Amino acid sequence: MKIRLAILGQGLVASHFEAGLERLKDGDMKPYGVPLANFPLPYRPEDLEIAVSYDVDNSKVGRSAYDVAMDLMGKEFPVPRGLKDIEVRRGIHMGSARGMPYSATGLEESRGLDAAVGALVDDWRSLGVDVVINVITTESGSAFGSADKLKEAVRSHAPNLTASHVYAYALAEYASARGGASFVNSIPTPLANDEGVIGLYREKGAVVLGDDGATGATPLTADILEHMAERNRKVEFVVQFNIGGNTDFLALTDPGRNSMKELTKSSIVDDILGYDAPHYIRPTGYLEPLGDRKFVAMHLSYLSFNNALDDVYVLARINDSPALAGILVDLARLAKISLDRGVRGTVYQVNAFYMKRPGPLGSQSISKIIAFEGLKKWLGSGS
Amino acid sequence: MKIRLAILGQGLVASHFEAGLERLKDGDMKPYGVPLANFPLPYRPEDLEIAVSYDVDNSKVGRSAYDVAMDLMGKEFPVPRGLKDIEVRRGIHMGSARGMPYSATGLEESRGLDAAVGALVDDWRSLGVDVVINVITTESGSAFGSADKLKEAVRSHAPNLTASHVYAYALAEYASARGGASFVNSIPTPLANDEGVIGLYREKGAVVLGDDGATGATPLTADILEHMAERNRKVEFVVQFNIGGNTDFLALTDPGRNSMKELTKSSIVDDILGYDAPHYIRPTGYLEPLGDRKFVAMHLSYLSFNNALDDVYVLARINDSPALAGILVDLARLAKISLDRGVRGTVYQVNAFYMKRPGPLGSQSISKIIAFEGLKKWLGSGS
Amino acid sequence: MKIRLAILGQGLVASHFEAGLERLKDGDMKPYGVPLANFPLPYRPEDLEIAVSYDVDNSKVGRSAYDVAMDLMGKEFPVPRGLKDIEVRRGIHMGSARGMPYSATGLEESRGLDAAVGALVDDWRSLGVDVVINVITTESGSAFGSADKLKEAVRSHAPNLTASHVYAYALAEYASARGGASFVNSIPTPLANDEGVIGLYREKGAVVLGDDGATGATPLTADILEHMAERNRKVEFVVQFNIGGNTDFLALTDPGRNSMKELTKSSIVDDILGYDAPHYIRPTGYLEPLGDRKFVAMHLSYLSFNNALDDVYVLARINDSPALAGILVDLARLAKISLDRGVRGTVYQVNAFYMKRPGPLGSQSISKIIAFEGLKKWLGSGS
Amino acid sequence: MKIRLAILGQGLVASHFEAGLERLKDGDMKPYGVPLANFPLPYRPEDLEIAVSYDVDNSKVGRSAYDVAMDLMGKEFPVPRGLKDIEVRRGIHMGSARGMPYSATGLEESRGLDAAVGALVDDWRSLGVDVVINVITTESGSAFGSADKLKEAVRSHAPNLTASHVYAYALAEYASARGGASFVNSIPTPLANDEGVIGLYREKGAVVLGDDGATGATPLTADILEHMAERNRKVEFVVQFNIGGNTDFLALTDPGRNSMKELTKSSIVDDILGYDAPHYIRPTGYLEPLGDRKFVAMHLSYLSFNNALDDVYVLARINDSPALAGILVDLARLAKISLDRGVRGTVYQVNAFYMKRPGPLGSQSISKIIAFEGLKKWLGSGS
Repeated sequence: MKIRLAILGQGLVASHFEAGLERLKDGDMKPYGVPLANFPLPYRPEDLEIAVSYDVDNSKVGRSAYDVAMDLMGKEFPVPRGLKDIEVRRGIHMGSARGMPYSATGLEESRGLDAAVGALVDDWRSLGVDVVINVITTESGSAFGSADKLKEAVRSHAPNLTASHVYAYALAEYASARGGASFVNSIPTPLANDEGVIGLYREKGAVVLGDDGATGATPLTADILEHMAERNRKVEFVVQFNIGGNTDFLALTDPGRNSMKELTKSSIVDDILGYDAPHYIRPTGYLEPLGDRKFVAMHLSYLSFNNALDDVYVLARINDSPALAGILVDLARLAKISLDRGVRGTVYQVNAFYMKRPGPLGSQSISKIIAFEGLKKWLGSGS
Repeated sequence: MKIRLAILGQGLVASHFEAGLERLKDGDMKPYGVPLANFPLPYRPEDLEIAVSYDVDNSKVGRSAYDVAMDLMGKEFPVPRGLKDIEVRRGIHMGSARGMPYSATGLEESRGLDAAVGALVDDWRSLGVDVVINVITTESGSAFGSADKLKEAVRSHAPNLTASHVYAYALAEYASARGGASFVNSIPTPLANDEGVIGLYREKGAVVLGDDGATGATPLTADILEHMAERNRKVEFVVQFNIGGNTDFLALTDPGRNSMKELTKSSIVDDILGYDAPHYIRPTGYLEPLGDRKFVAMHLSYLSFNNALDDVYVLARINDSPALAGILVDLARLAKISLDRGVRGTVYQVNAFYMKRPGPLGSQSISKIIAFEGLKKWLGSGS
Repeated sequence: MKIRLAILGQGLVASHFEAGLERLKDGDMKPYGVPLANFPLPYRPEDLEIAVSYDVDNSKVGRSAYDVAMDLMGKEFPVPRGLKDIEVRRGIHMGSARGMPYSATGLEESRGLDAAVGALVDDWRSLGVDVVINVITTESGSAFGSADKLKEAVRSHAPNLTASHVYAYALAEYASARGGASFVNSIPTPLANDEGVIGLYREKGAVVLGDDGATGATPLTADILEHMAERNRKVEFVVQFNIGGNTDFLALTDPGRNSMKELTKSSIVDDILGYDAPHYIRPTGYLEPLGDRKFVAMHLSYLSFNNALDDVYVLARINDSPALAGILVDLARLAKISLDRGVRGTVYQVNAFYMKRPGPLGSQSISKIIAFEGLKKWLGSGS
Repeated sequence: MKIRLAILGQGLVASHFEAGLERLKDGDMKPYGVPLANFPLPYRPEDLEIAVSYDVDNSKVGRSAYDVAMDLMGKEFPVPRGLKDIEVRRGIHMGSARGMPYSATGLEESRGLDAAVGALVDDWRSLGVDVVINVITTESGSAFGSADKLKEAVRSHAPNLTASHVYAYALAEYASARGGASFVNSIPTPLANDEGVIGLYREKGAVVLGDDGATGATPLTADILEHMAERNRKVEFVVQFNIGGNTDFLALTDPGRNSMKELTKSSIVDDILGYDAPHYIRPTGYLEPLGDRKFVAMHLSYLSFNNALDDVYVLARINDSPALAGILVDLARLAKISLDRGVRGTVYQVNAFYMKRPGPLGSQSISKIIAFEGLKKWLGSGS
């Protein structure tokens, strides 16, 4: 059984995801970075098929994923020729790419929003899409709170609608017509944390996993904090800087988008330690030559027994996009498995391990090692 | 209900342990660094009482724990006057402190080994000791394999007997006479990993927890490796250096003692990752001005999805002795609780979290976060 | 021969400076952190005397330097009783402390600017002040460009006048009346880099050293860049973060003040390497529990021979205020020595080593090791 | 004017040196990592020509430098086809490669030592060699002290002769016959620090530069220590670890060879600071997957003004062989220039910048930034 995917946002993450899947199918590499690669799931990584990709960057629309990937990462990574079969179609904009250094046009600008949603649903129906994966650039957006408010916003083409909301809405329409479909949200826009989206998905028979894929420094920080918490050490402060040179860091130089990330990252301190240790955790800057390999610096001090003060420092150079692409191999499969199991809405046990801000709203951030135990239990339980 | 303790080795760890307990009783500080401080156990940290302490350093024997602690840490940490009531008596040597820069004499040298064992048993009986805690300097020693071989070694005063073995043997004799007692081994000498000691303890009705208290860098490395393993990242190599200026690092400049530590530290890689990633993990050197605050440097590289190579670096300055003293507050209580619950021999669930080389022999090193879940389950189960 | 000092800004730097001088005179410690401590200068560190101190924080004005220092650093450092003799008088405000979390009032608010300047001049005359040292909190300010414009601004109480400009103007008046005096500017406001101030000082017979005392991470970065430059390595990028918990980092959360620092810090890259390697160097944040011991993280990558790519990381915890206080011991003496030697205006050879942005305007940032050679040459030359 | 070179030891350093020179001539890259690349010297990097190479590894002798380089670094670096013209001939062994994991045979084993020396001299004469460059694996060896003792050792084929001594002796013979030649010693064996070699070279009209090429961590440590010394900071301790996966680190697991390095590295502390701050500086271990990109971790703490304690940490991943190859481009030229200028013996001003243990014996280690100033002065002086 295959799983058919539509990709939203043909950037570096999509390119690594698509290239990696091809290389896996070619037997050219092992599935490192895919947490459940060796776990017996009903679908294998090789069962994932990319049906279509969407973007709003006019220099990408109409080309193949191969051509785009060659531009973005062809110097550092091999790009399999299989990507020539993936077409990049025009997607939804809603101003989400505002301020980015490229010219962007959305499907809704020429046709109107209703027709644009209809076109997506038609695409997915004709291509037999099972799961839609959202990896567009971080946008500024907030929750709607109820399905009715979300529907009304789409009806009226409201200014606070983001591209992600429109895509998520289209997926619900598609699921309703087809009898189920799934959405994976790996960016910070609250979807799995929005009672509006969750409510709509329960009603229409869809699954959403999200929000904000947990890669890089935040999960490592979470596990290190859990390490401290278990020993009842008193964390005096936590500092964590991030700087990178990819499009996402460029997008985060915009204060509105940056605050989306900061919120996500900071909640882990209180959630894991049980007290709000003073912290400064945020994406800090953009420096082009760092490329996709971001630099992370962390420092924390804590009190040990007898009030002895210890210092810990963590430094890392981490390839941002491959890390996210790797967990998408699981998320795409878990999104389909959840639907197969009859889930409607979202699955906390999946989100808790894979997401920085696990939905539904009000869920606690827990250490990833603990969350992984919970995920394995959920998988084993068969329900 | 109180728990009465005998301490073996009146060094920095013992000093921090004793000083910290006094400060806790005085309400002078919080129990940071005590993992189960806020967990409802039948005994509180304040229920621990130091009945007596032993050492072989002639400059310590006959003085009070207060005087010794003032010398060792009086400049950096407060030393409560309550330590004046703890007498440092002469303990067992067996050559374990050979090569250390102080003059050492063991009880067995003047009286013979049999009488020395008898004297310890008499001491503990008259003082009502419940738990004996071994924090002597790292010695070179190996397992006996069967209770008979261990007994025979004591009978014949065999050259491969270490101070720890003699103390552990004395505890078994005491437990047999009194109806149960416990031994906590926080140094690398294999006791909880020796079928000889375990067998003897089952026979005599005693509990041993060990071996090698897990503090500092190794548990953190274990949790970071678990973090990688869960994401199916391929660890290319692990480097970890340690250097400190306390007596234990000085002792480890002796190759025989150093190899004891290296063994313990290295096994975590294979156990947690499931493959033997190339590694160089060892205590590396002694430098006096670092004092008890050791310096740890770690570096690992791994392959992420699409074979992207990431680098992680961890640096730390860690107070060695307070870290160990903090977990002794739990171990002393868990040693008594185990006995109360009817355990004879050892308890893997306790050792797995608190020890670098958890007994019994053949047990796997697992990440500490996972081990902590197992410990809580064992505590909750009431058995 | 003594040197009589007036201190502007009774904060942590002033407190360390005053306390350290007292401890030196008491023989209680060695002059570590004073670059020229062992160099034969005509004045010894012990020849420095604090005549008076100024501040605008209403909770400090009227108290003794001892009381203020006890509040600011009494828990971590000894405060000699000699500081009881230093009175904190009300100084100039001009809005420079706007936004800081304390109530501030300037001398000029009650008396008018003219009278305030006159009061300072009178103070200094009656106290026999030789050198005025500016260590007020970082303010937002820019150069005037000509002596006439600066004079006119004071005459008209112009809104772009800062506290530092007024103090510097008062010093010129005082020098003119008394026959010479010196000003040390260790904050970023351009004084030694302002042709206005330099011109005025030449006219009035005064010396100014500045701007922005070079301590902490920037000089170390400069020397590491020089290390790369000499080996003709191609620096691909430089990242440097700084975060601290003292008043100066709090002040830098204000964008106007922050841009003052960023300018200073970034110019070193181009100046030393000879090309503008991509860099992100700036004070990044405020986190109270870090206190005066800021955390610095640096990362740079460079191409070596055969285009091999190397990575270097530097981390540090640095006491900000003592570092600055230490070089003030030299600067106070060099300011007087410069005047003794007949200098009017500023001295590049002194500024090049001690300042982040060495005056006069247009001077190059050079590595500190090279600058130190130049300084020693200037000292030896006797001119 | 060309400079003709003979290379001793066809390992990674030789391969990078040869490949880099070809790429420079092809205009394929810039001379990064060559300190004097942009300095007007009488010879350009492109004037260097490799005439011949020597090794004792039986799997290398008789092949081309191209074939050897492809094996050693072909996966990570381009290997120009020009290296096919460089023949690897059998060189001197003298047991210097003992314990290394390859089969080694020396020219002297079949022919006797005298004939082997004669064969080298003949080679060099027929090829018109100007400079011989020693980059063989670190061997265990010590100084002879006088030219007579060295000559006698060669005459009697003494057991304490190393391969480097024999090569250096052959160069002296060649220089005597030809009227001058130069030797660059980039390994720790004391040649430029041996009065025996220096005396012989003065007598025979030759130049030797050495010993132990200064690359990687030690020069950076030297410059950081100079940074501290200039500020009169009191360094409390210095820790520096090195671990790598190339042949040289493997060789250093042999205690005899390791002590050669430790000596070199440690002397910088006392020389630069003026006092012997406690330090632990040594190559620590071998771990194959690190390859030629060694990992360096450094930590130092110092007292600043008012006895404030600061901590600095430096981490690096450094390509060992390209770093050395880059400075050989200068050393080969400076060896010829020295000869042209009439130098006989050695040149401290050159050694001081390029060598870890600059000859002649008794010379001080100084910071590299200071040494570079001295080098430029020597170059400019024309003598």
